[in-house]
Amino acid sequence: MAGDKKDEPRLKSNFDVDYVIHYKLPASGAKAETAEAEAAFVQLIQALADVGFATEVRNGGKSSLLVFTKIASDRLLNNQVYRYRVQDWLYGVRTAAPNQDLSKYFEDEPVTEAERLRLAYLLITKPKNEGGAGITPKVGQWQHVASIFPLHDHAFNRQWIKQWSTKYYLNDDDINQIRDRFGEKVAFYFAFLQSYFAFLLFPAAFGFAAWLVLGQFSWFYAVVNCLWSVVFFEHWKMKEVDLAVRWGVRGVSKIQHPRPQFQFEREAQDPVTGEIVKIYSPFKRLARQLLQVPFALACITVLGGLILGCFSIEIFITEVYNGPFKQYLTFLPTIILSIFMPTFSTLLTKLAERLTDMENYETLDSHQASFVQKIFVLNFITSYLGIILTAFVYVPFGRVLVPYLDFFQLTAQKFTTEGAPLPTKNWEINPDRLTKQIIYFTVTAQVVNFATEVIVPNVKRKVTKTVEKVSEKNGNGPQIKDVPEEHTFLKRVRDEADLDQYDVTVDYREMVIQFGTSQPLSFSISPELTQPPGYLSLFSVIWPLTACSFLVNNWVEARSDAMKIATSCQRPIPWRADSIGPWLNSLGFLSWFGSITSAAIVFLFKDKAGPAGNPWGISGWALLLSILFAEHLYLVVQIIVRGVIHKMDSPGLQKERAERFAMRKQLLEQTFGQDVTEESHGPGLSGGEKITRAALEEAARQESIKGNWSLEQQFWQRQRGAGETIQVGRGMISEVGDTSSPGTGCAM
Amino acid sequence: MAGDKKDEPRLKSNFDVDYVIHYKLPASGAKAETAEAEAAFVQLIQALADVGFATEVRNGGKSSLLVFTKIASDRLLNNQVYRYRVQDWLYGVRTAAPNQDLSKYFEDEPVTEAERLRLAYLLITKPKNEGGAGITPKVGQWQHVASIFPLHDHAFNRQWIKQWSTKYYLNDDDINQIRDRFGEKVAFYFAFLQSYFAFLLFPAAFGFAAWLVLGQFSWFYAVVNCLWSVVFFEHWKMKEVDLAVRWGVRGVSKIQHPRPQFQFEREAQDPVTGEIVKIYSPFKRLARQLLQVPFALACITVLGGLILGCFSIEIFITEVYNGPFKQYLTFLPTIILSIFMPTFSTLLTKLAERLTDMENYETLDSHQASFVQKIFVLNFITSYLGIILTAFVYVPFGRVLVPYLDFFQLTAQKFTTEGAPLPTKNWEINPDRLTKQIIYFTVTAQVVNFATEVIVPNVKRKVTKTVEKVSEKNGNGPQIKDVPEEHTFLKRVRDEADLDQYDVTVDYREMVIQFGTSQPLSFSISPELTQPPGYLSLFSVIWPLTACSFLVNNWVEARSDAMKIATSCQRPIPWRADSIGPWLNSLGFLSWFGSITSAAIVFLFKDKAGPAGNPWGISGWALLLSILFAEHLYLVVQIIVRGVIHKMDSPGLQKERAERFAMRKQLLEQTFGQDVTEESHGPGLSGGEKITRAALEEAARQESIKGNWSLEQQFWQRQRGAGETIQVGRGMISEVGDTSSPGTGCAM
Repeated sequence: MAGDKKDEPRLKSNFDVDYVIHYKLPASGAKAETAEAEAAFVQLIQALADVGFATEVRNGGKSSLLVFTKIASDRLLNNQVYRYRVQDWLYGVRTAAPNQDLSKYFEDEPVTEAERLRLAYLLITKPKNEGGAGITPKVGQWQHVASIFPLHDHAFNRQWIKQWSTKYYLNDDDINQIRDRFGEKVAFYFAFLQSYFAFLLFPAAFGFAAWLVLGQFSWFYAVVNCLWSVVFFEHWKMKEVDLAVRWGVRGVSKIQHPRPQFQFEREAQDPVTGEIVKIYSPFKRLARQLLQVPFALACITVLGGLILGCFSIEIFITEVYNGPFKQYLTFLPTIILSIFMPTFSTLLTKLAERLTDMENYETLDSHQASFVQKIFVLNFITSYLGIILTAFVYVPFGRVLVPYLDFFQLTAQKFTTEGAPLPTKNWEINPDRLTKQIIYFTVTAQVVNFATEVIVPNVKRKVTKTVEKVSEKNGNGPQIKDVPEEHTFLKRVRDEADLDQYDVTVDYREMVIQFGTSQPLSFSISPELTQPPGYLSLFSVIWPLTACSFLVNNWVEARSDAMKIATSCQRPIPWRADSIGPWLNSLGFLSWFGSITSAAIVFLFKDKAGPAGNPWGISGWALLLSILFAEHLYLVVQIIVRGVIHKMDSPGLQKERAERFAMRKQLLEQTFGQDVTEESHGPGLSGGEKITRAALEEAARQESIKGNWSLEQQFWQRQRGAGETIQVGRGMISEVGDTSSPGTGCAM
Repeated sequence: MAGDKKDEPRLKSNFDVDYVIHYKLPASGAKAETAEAEAAFVQLIQALADVGFATEVRNGGKSSLLVFTKIASDRLLNNQVYRYRVQDWLYGVRTAAPNQDLSKYFEDEPVTEAERLRLAYLLITKPKNEGGAGITPKVGQWQHVASIFPLHDHAFNRQWIKQWSTKYYLNDDDINQIRDRFGEKVAFYFAFLQSYFAFLLFPAAFGFAAWLVLGQFSWFYAVVNCLWSVVFFEHWKMKEVDLAVRWGVRGVSKIQHPRPQFQFEREAQDPVTGEIVKIYSPFKRLARQLLQVPFALACITVLGGLILGCFSIEIFITEVYNGPFKQYLTFLPTIILSIFMPTFSTLLTKLAERLTDMENYETLDSHQASFVQKIFVLNFITSYLGIILTAFVYVPFGRVLVPYLDFFQLTAQKFTTEGAPLPTKNWEINPDRLTKQIIYFTVTAQVVNFATEVIVPNVKRKVTKTVEKVSEKNGNGPQIKDVPEEHTFLKRVRDEADLDQYDVTVDYREMVIQFGTSQPLSFSISPELTQPPGYLSLFSVIWPLTACSFLVNNWVEARSDAMKIATSCQRPIPWRADSIGPWLNSLGFLSWFGSITSAAIVFLFKDKAGPAGNPWGISGWALLLSILFAEHLYLVVQIIVRGVIHKMDSPGLQKERAERFAMRKQLLEQTFGQDVTEESHGPGLSGGEKITRAALEEAARQESIKGNWSLEQQFWQRQRGAGETIQVGRGMISEVGDTSSPGTGCAM
């Protein structure tokens, strides 16, 4: 790298900038709008200055400004860090309370880059009454603020990509590196990817062996695959906790960030803390949450109808129809799907967003969880409905349903002028259809997906850049005059300002659906891809090589996601997280659902052709019994695996234990010193004088008569010290021995 | 109470005794044994004195001593309390760390009676290397220590029983009273009982209405009942947490008490804390845990075989057989069951104990959980197998199976000398059998149970006492000479020493199985009772009045349990708990299982007579589909109810929130004082002089040439203060406005 001509190290510097605020001016240039933007700009700088940011403004190109900010004083930063660390401690995220001697404290636990960036972002965005600047991009007063983003560390990025692309296996250090730079939320994604990759090795090897030896639809493969998904799921749950503890973020999900868009109905005093809190009626929210039911129905109707329609047309054309233009008509369903599917998906995603907004959550986490839930429903339908239709409708019920496809024939006939009936083939169930579908989705789709996700956007961006450059050179755009030493830097920032924000949700969706599939909804091109790739836990029993394909895909996926973050997106804000969040539930759901679909598929297709379209050949109770049995086997195994994993130790839990222990030791020593154990000695064996029980008790009685002792005091003074107790007790024992020995003990 | 003649208040005093140690001397009176007991006694007193107990010894009657102990110094007690409160805080049980100013601290948070008793017990029993006296009743060196128990507060007990027996409904205060006296573990039992009672009101009312309107085997009743059990289960889970927080014991289950009987294989240094820990191979334990499988099989074979056998004999005799001695032979199964069932149950319970001991747990909690699990299997079989046989074997398969009962006929024929065939009835399925079984179990058994549990032991004890008194008066027993003012007290203590220890597990078992049933295994008398009473969630669909019967029973149960604690048992050691422990799982299991049995019963018996012994009339797939549907409905409802309840606030959670908030406020104020928000102001809008962008940037450039400023310093000095940033930004905005307005904005 050092040999690179243009990369003088000082020019790679980020000039200590914490955040860049991309401020877009109205493109129209109308006076009123410009004036308003100007006023808002003044407010922006004032708000930043008020909470302690230093600011610099530069021209951002294309009618925009770039406001550079950094936290002005170390004192302010330290205050913030201390506040948030105290909060962490109160929520149980940190074991020890922060030391109150601040200067020493920050020497012991220095502020990391991710922490600084996170707190700076919070300081910029949190509401004014909580001590922040209250700047919320694109919302209300701040509509001109297009984005607030930290700057990429290009030296790091280059080294990172180089390192990863030459490595077979990512280890914990690689993940920790991500965590230090991009925060725990992104790191958790890569940790999940890495865990998944490691766990895929087994089903890939086993799947390959099963493919050679057992063939398709093997119940043995289904059981092993199902067990594997339980083990993976439960292992990940443990790993998640372990990582959270090691990264010091266990329980951060309890610390909720308020959602700036939250609309409150009224303010009230919290009965507990006395603080003013914003309230939105939970019943209203519930009412709006219930809209999820019609939403799910709408998804099923719209997407399901589309898929079902194209599915029927396709079967009709490829397997029934034999008339003219067959070679062209084959593409009809593909064309219909590729036009309508992305449109409908986008519309429904927008609708999901709207619905989630309407539900008006107070915190970012609950908002996101609710959105993820809806998206999961959407993806579930687009991803699995095609295969479900083939496996559970086409193959078993084909013979019953295909006659209804005559409808298409009648329709088609209307368009042909000749009165002669359209030529048709004698229809037969195509038993390979299911396998072909799965293979196509697990292999071809993965490649196409990689292309759409990584290559296309990169090419697109380069083309756009080139066009811009050319048009700039032709004098069409405004020329920006930068200070020479800042020129390279500002150019870089302008480029970064144009990038998309990185959304880890999109990447999670891919991975979970691959557990599931690997096709993000939004990039659907070909119709087949909208019923995306094979599902390890749901459908891999159809084609055991599925896992091999995913193993390769995952290796590429990790690298291409790294590349995406480094080159195609703005640097992510280093949020913390203590888990993969709502995706865990989706994963659990798919794993459970897999036990049902696998059992059903194995049962239906146990002779390779399946029921061949004849539903009367299926024994209903046997099918249901297999499903019932498989599901409960799954649940029982889950309980057992959970129990076993629960008992295992992990580095994270060890760390936690060590911290607790150290703190406790310290605290006890502080309070009691070394004398704790010595103190605990009682009166001991004092009073060794020769005494008899009678004499002692008499003495005590005498004393009680003399003094004004209470009955209690008398009671406890009869035997003074343990020595006397022993003596009196011995007396009693020998008495008992004497009285009882003549009775029963004489035989010995 | 004041009017009671014999109850002079000072004579009711417990003389400040913390614990009484009942020390039994060898009854044989052999010299060697007595000497050994004497040596052990000396060690006992020394061990107690070493850790700081004051001791007094008195004659216990019947060859035993009573050793009275109390913590000798307040300082020691306070040390202990502080230690354990620090531990609580470290485990997250307490929100705030104990104040290090001890004298003030104990004024603010005084030591309660339950706390004192608990710590005293721990001090007596925990191992020497952990600072305790290491006295473990009945084990090894301490085999003569029969029990260690605190003394009943008779004034409180009398008032308690009087209060409860005149009250319809127990409220939180009543439960809190229990908690203050007997600790959280017992209090949780009564809290559960009270919650259950409150929740029973609905199914009792609804069940009554259903009985009138819908009759038996109503699917509507089944669904409502199933929903109710979900709601109850989830509500209790919340209530449990709420109570734990309010009682300050949330998370105490994480603080494990070591089990004295634990046998370690080797000692090793903990890699984390450096402490010496005792290790037992988890694989060995796992191997022994696997013995649970043969144990469960043994239970099923032995108990199941017995029940099945008696069941067949009974059906044969009552419904098939019509020969001589019929009126006597009817009692045959009853006799067989009442002889063998208790024997087998006791044997299997002993076996379960042995197995649990072999599993060699390190902590009391895991030991108990494992034992409870085994007992649950045992109880499940004895409780439910009878009804399951009737519902799912006798009624559907009767016609197929009854011919095999000819075996009995042949056997019986051998015993009759005449060669003529035994007269038999023409067999018909008895459709009322199931209902009768349930009614008998839910009503009759409850009464019998009450009698066996409360009245019989009380009568037995009174009889024993009377016999003892008479024999004492006749001079057969040794006369004990007490100091007059201690006589009443010592007599009371001697009585208490003879009582059983209270085991809350037995009471839990009853309640959970009633959810379930109400018949403790160990008190089985009649054969019918060994297949105990009706189960609300499992079988109440057979007879909707079940809940009414349980409502009455529960009211009585709470009072009779209180009575049991107050009069028939030693005062329990006030252990803490943060839940009902392993019973929660049993409850959940029964609730889930109920969804399956109810669906199956409703389906099978939808026409009242059921399948009437003919299995070919049953549609297998429809039955399985109903079960599948019911079970998944149950699971979905559970997720929803869990979600809703999770969002609800509770007094306990509010308390926790308030504590956290108060602590945080205090800590922040301590560190930053009042100036936190003022501090956060940055450089602000300083530097108001008129400037132009060009002039400023030029000035900065000049400075940078002059000084040795780094690029970073130069960058941040171009605009000095927010005022300058605003000015420069405004300049840029107007520039952009100027250049773009002639292009696109001129129309406005």
